[in-house]
Amino acid sequence: MKQLISLIVMFTAFISPVSHAAEMFAGEDGYRLWLKYDRINDPVQRHQYQKQLTRIYLPGQSGTTLAIRQELTAALPHLLAKPITFISHANRANSLVIVKGTQAIQKRYGLGERFTKLTDEGFLIKALNTKQGQQTLITAKSDIGLLYGTFRLIQQLQTGKDIRQINLAESPKIRIRMLDHWDDLDRHTERGYAGQSIWDWHKLPDYKKQRYYDYARANASIGINGVALNNVNADALILTPTWLKKVAALADIFRPYGIKVYLSVKFSSPQQIGDLKTSDPNNKAVQQWWQKKAQELYHVIPDFGGFLVKANSEGQPGPGDYGRTHAEGANMLAKALKPYGGNVIWRAFVYSHEEDTERSLQAYNEFVPLDGQFADNVSVQVKNGPIDFQPREPFSPLFGAMPQTSLAMEFQITQEYLGFSTHLVYLATLFKETLDSDTYQYGKGSTVAKVIDGSNYKAGKPHLTVMAGVANIGMDRNWTGHIFGQANWYAFGRLAWDHELSAETIASDWAKMTLTNDPQAIQTIVSLMMNSRETIVNYMTPLGLHHLMGSDHHYGPAPWVDNLGRADWNPVYYHRADEQGIGLDRTATGTNAVSQYAKHWQTIFSDPKKTPETLLLWFHHLPWDYKMASGDTLWNALVKHYYQGVDDVIAMQKQWLTLKGKIDNNQFNQVRMALAIQVKEAKWWRDACVLYFQTFSQRPLPKGYKAPEKTLEYYQSLTFPYAPGQG
Amino acid sequence: MKQLISLIVMFTAFISPVSHAAEMFAGEDGYRLWLKYDRINDPVQRHQYQKQLTRIYLPGQSGTTLAIRQELTAALPHLLAKPITFISHANRANSLVIVKGTQAIQKRYGLGERFTKLTDEGFLIKALNTKQGQQTLITAKSDIGLLYGTFRLIQQLQTGKDIRQINLAESPKIRIRMLDHWDDLDRHTERGYAGQSIWDWHKLPDYKKQRYYDYARANASIGINGVALNNVNADALILTPTWLKKVAALADIFRPYGIKVYLSVKFSSPQQIGDLKTSDPNNKAVQQWWQKKAQELYHVIPDFGGFLVKANSEGQPGPGDYGRTHAEGANMLAKALKPYGGNVIWRAFVYSHEEDTERSLQAYNEFVPLDGQFADNVSVQVKNGPIDFQPREPFSPLFGAMPQTSLAMEFQITQEYLGFSTHLVYLATLFKETLDSDTYQYGKGSTVAKVIDGSNYKAGKPHLTVMAGVANIGMDRNWTGHIFGQANWYAFGRLAWDHELSAETIASDWAKMTLTNDPQAIQTIVSLMMNSRETIVNYMTPLGLHHLMGSDHHYGPAPWVDNLGRADWNPVYYHRADEQGIGLDRTATGTNAVSQYAKHWQTIFSDPKKTPETLLLWFHHLPWDYKMASGDTLWNALVKHYYQGVDDVIAMQKQWLTLKGKIDNNQFNQVRMALAIQVKEAKWWRDACVLYFQTFSQRPLPKGYKAPEKTLEYYQSLTFPYAPGQG
Repeated sequence: MKQLISLIVMFTAFISPVSHAAEMFAGEDGYRLWLKYDRINDPVQRHQYQKQLTRIYLPGQSGTTLAIRQELTAALPHLLAKPITFISHANRANSLVIVKGTQAIQKRYGLGERFTKLTDEGFLIKALNTKQGQQTLITAKSDIGLLYGTFRLIQQLQTGKDIRQINLAESPKIRIRMLDHWDDLDRHTERGYAGQSIWDWHKLPDYKKQRYYDYARANASIGINGVALNNVNADALILTPTWLKKVAALADIFRPYGIKVYLSVKFSSPQQIGDLKTSDPNNKAVQQWWQKKAQELYHVIPDFGGFLVKANSEGQPGPGDYGRTHAEGANMLAKALKPYGGNVIWRAFVYSHEEDTERSLQAYNEFVPLDGQFADNVSVQVKNGPIDFQPREPFSPLFGAMPQTSLAMEFQITQEYLGFSTHLVYLATLFKETLDSDTYQYGKGSTVAKVIDGSNYKAGKPHLTVMAGVANIGMDRNWTGHIFGQANWYAFGRLAWDHELSAETIASDWAKMTLTNDPQAIQTIVSLMMNSRETIVNYMTPLGLHHLMGSDHHYGPAPWVDNLGRADWNPVYYHRADEQGIGLDRTATGTNAVSQYAKHWQTIFSDPKKTPETLLLWFHHLPWDYKMASGDTLWNALVKHYYQGVDDVIAMQKQWLTLKGKIDNNQFNQVRMALAIQVKEAKWWRDACVLYFQTFSQRPLPKGYKAPEKTLEYYQSLTFPYAPGQG
Repeated sequence: MKQLISLIVMFTAFISPVSHAAEMFAGEDGYRLWLKYDRINDPVQRHQYQKQLTRIYLPGQSGTTLAIRQELTAALPHLLAKPITFISHANRANSLVIVKGTQAIQKRYGLGERFTKLTDEGFLIKALNTKQGQQTLITAKSDIGLLYGTFRLIQQLQTGKDIRQINLAESPKIRIRMLDHWDDLDRHTERGYAGQSIWDWHKLPDYKKQRYYDYARANASIGINGVALNNVNADALILTPTWLKKVAALADIFRPYGIKVYLSVKFSSPQQIGDLKTSDPNNKAVQQWWQKKAQELYHVIPDFGGFLVKANSEGQPGPGDYGRTHAEGANMLAKALKPYGGNVIWRAFVYSHEEDTERSLQAYNEFVPLDGQFADNVSVQVKNGPIDFQPREPFSPLFGAMPQTSLAMEFQITQEYLGFSTHLVYLATLFKETLDSDTYQYGKGSTVAKVIDGSNYKAGKPHLTVMAGVANIGMDRNWTGHIFGQANWYAFGRLAWDHELSAETIASDWAKMTLTNDPQAIQTIVSLMMNSRETIVNYMTPLGLHHLMGSDHHYGPAPWVDNLGRADWNPVYYHRADEQGIGLDRTATGTNAVSQYAKHWQTIFSDPKKTPETLLLWFHHLPWDYKMASGDTLWNALVKHYYQGVDDVIAMQKQWLTLKGKIDNNQFNQVRMALAIQVKEAKWWRDACVLYFQTFSQRPLPKGYKAPEKTLEYYQSLTFPYAPGQG
């Protein structure tokens, strides 16, 4: 009884609102991500897993084999609450057998075509009834396939799957699945909202932080196999010997986990660090400089992945400075890397200082004429939408328009335009919306995903398939600033591996691995995640509005900004609100951006009545009294979307509060605090935007809608000189 | 047997050199600092502690009482491996009684004078034999005294003390014991080497990180009761309403832990954020502006500590801009804070752009004439030495030279000039060297410590005693970048509380609480710590040399630099090496800095034969063939010191390696990697300095000393554009 009292006392101390001191010893601070290996609660399931998995046969001594061994050693004894034994023979009953698939093994276990069809990175997990009894087999064509299979098996346990008859065969649909870090060499991260860059360059190469290993584990667990370490607004110094030593140290840590290192390079490097007078890609000395640099690179990093390049965009140097095309620039670098198997990922996010074509048109105009001209180790990386990672954009018209070019997808995981790291926004629905979009460029069913994975590729040379995500990772203890930011990292990896997975499945897996296995709590969490993206669209940029955020730092609303150096940096350029109406006419009567899409879409996007309301103001400038499908005027509908967004965040907050006690208190509190900020900022967005647009519409709020408490002038007076992530 | 094998397998996996993945789940990453509450291994001691401490009587409901309750709840059940019970009566046997000392309690327990003499923050811990049986009493005059007493009791357990007859009475010798964070509002930390600032300003006030609470706990555990949150190179914005809300959120978290918040303020704030045309301290509008600001501040932070000010130094604005003295400037601010009990800490680290007096003389020249003019809520904060936190300096001549002024000590905990966060340097010996220095200003025995703690204060008004340390804390998981950096934070706090403690005692306490209780390992660790500071002096700046580091970033050696904007920014200004010899003549034949010291020291410092060799070249320019006490020439002695320094680091490294397996593997590896860097950089310092000074001495190395492998030109060619912490 006395002990019971003291336990009660302890428990109340742990949840005291006055101070969180005690969490230090007990709380789940988010560092373990989805790789939480706590005891499985269900005793029946745990017993079954124990029976199947505590003896392990894992031959081999490669770095990757050791990584598998370590992961199993870290995971199984805790998940199963039973020690594991590594055994030296494959033929013991009730054992987990992890072996590369030789012909003998294929035959012995009758794996057949399912094995043959695996790619180098694929794996097969199969429950076997052998002469020796029940066994669980993980096999693959490479050690890294075995590692991926191991992580998939661990995931099955974490999510409570029945593995008695497990029979999975998976190969990634995309070859290069990579994270792009926009990390500067001084550890600032452009558009980073989770603290400083995780690369502690000053202490590298000698000081190897634990976080580097855990970063590699986390990525491998979801199939990410490439990492661009530094900002695409690149510093030439990254290619100097001092820095390459640091890069090599990271590459050494990542190698056993199947992760290759890529570097963002500055196109003018030959001048900046090479003493050349030009960086013209057609200049022999320049070509030789890059070839020598590639040789030097592969000497220290034999499996170096390649270069990521932002050229002739937002002031970055590029081949255009010498009258050369993007293809000439990219191919020159590709040639230097080719002998070593390296690739060039060349960004299509370009808009020039000289050009005054409407911004959404420029990438298409510049790249489509180059179709077929890129070397086969070049992939042209296209952002999901034609502008810049907005809460909602239509898919970029480049997808499907370059049938002879390897096109890479670039998503943004970091929430530059989606509330930084205090807004709960699950991005898998956004990613899926783009991937599932049908371009109609090769007839019905030619989705963006099929463009990316090569299904619709027409060049007759090897296709380099790439999906990249701009990372949301920093030094914050929970990696991403917001616990739910982890879900976006996780979902990106899962979708890069298999774009056919549903956002809901991924949300459910993530939540079970990260937060709880309580079915009711999972239901709440998944529903909250699934609705979250539409919610932010509503309170930030409903009905196809876009680019309304504050200048430079992109924090908060500033639709009124009209004084920046370039017309297309200003929000007013995009919303075009005036006394008549609102929206940017991108039909034939306007900028004619619709012409860049397939006929199917041209017809739809040209007609406001056919255009999905979610993209209405993206394509049309419409009068304030334009009648919506609902019967509302456009003005009333716009206001209602803004208010709906806020209401929905408040509902999310309420839903979250029901989880108190059902998930770890530390995780619960982190999200609780972030949601309070999200509610505040959602109201800020709503009120600032509604007040501003009202100066044009000159119409009252719909009946029953409460006017904002503050004035437009108040919102316009706010400044944020130290908002994080400024580029 | 099977289980045994698997345990062995698990163990080997955990210490595998290939990957540290498994540490994630098991390793001691350094976050817990010295507040590790793991089970006490010695069963006899544990049993005794259990008997004495598992019933606790702790009345009261204040924030501080709750903090005590939480700390005990976090600590005791783990240390003692037994649940604890909070009881509702003070008269139970075998209980821990934590009560404020009313008269009744004084009388009941016969506490007498020892209790009466306690300051408000002091405490008394006493084992009692009462009628009810054995009890352990913690008492004090305030809740915060009880918290300090609780932390002291926990420390006794962590360090394995016998507490059966415990009888301690302690009061701090210094009233304000504070950390100065040089943290900018964009989270850059000037001279920070442990990652970004821990203040996540963007997410404050709503998002309250666990780290803030643990920071408060750590500070309270060593008696730190003040924190200046922002850089002395201050940004006026810190005083705007937006930022004060953020500051108030931190103050709320720190309050239960007895910690007051201070802010560094920019003297020109009235102009920068107040729309005034001047910041002249004699201007009425300026005075009123500060008075209104103080009112606003205390409205949101009722226990606000005060202002820390860097004025007319290194380009900062100050009263001198208007022809006013430092006293006039400080008193104007002091008057504004006075009604609320706030203080002004005014830095004496000044050197002006116009002045060409030798740098070490300037603070004394400017401040001594102002003695007696400062208000009683002003303390003038003096760096330990006359230049700038070098590996070794003599004590500043200001100590003892301003008998009617409250002088604060400013130490630097962050290792700006001592190897950043990769060199193991225990600074308590440096702190003690200054504190124990006898100024002779009031006769023999008038040590610097006595100047600071007020023993020698002559003003007849209240004395404000302050010891400040420039923090070495950042977002790195282990807080300080280097595990041993924690020891410097810890030692600073302990010495600010009681400057009579020995560096060795503090080292031993820290090591036991942080690393291990193994007596042999403790011996190794303490000896390594105790020698570490002399080692770095040897490989960086032996024999009184100083200020030889790289420009701006202060990383690595650059004694050759002679081209900076001001003469006294150049290393050559300080070492004055030429063909004749080396050193800066600060005697009467030179800059006469010796004249600022008491007669006793003037005699000693004026004569190279009497000057301690550790400070020889600080005070004298001597010929290369000057004969040292050892019989060596100065040149040979100099070279030997440099080589000795490197040898000693290598010895440290070897000593450390003997600890493998005796302390946590993660902590072991962190220090191992840092030591490898320290060895490399010690050689760099040695070789660069020896090669450079050899260009003047034109003498060979002493017999048997191996010449550096690289050339001087190589060292001179190195650049570090992204070295951390640049100001």
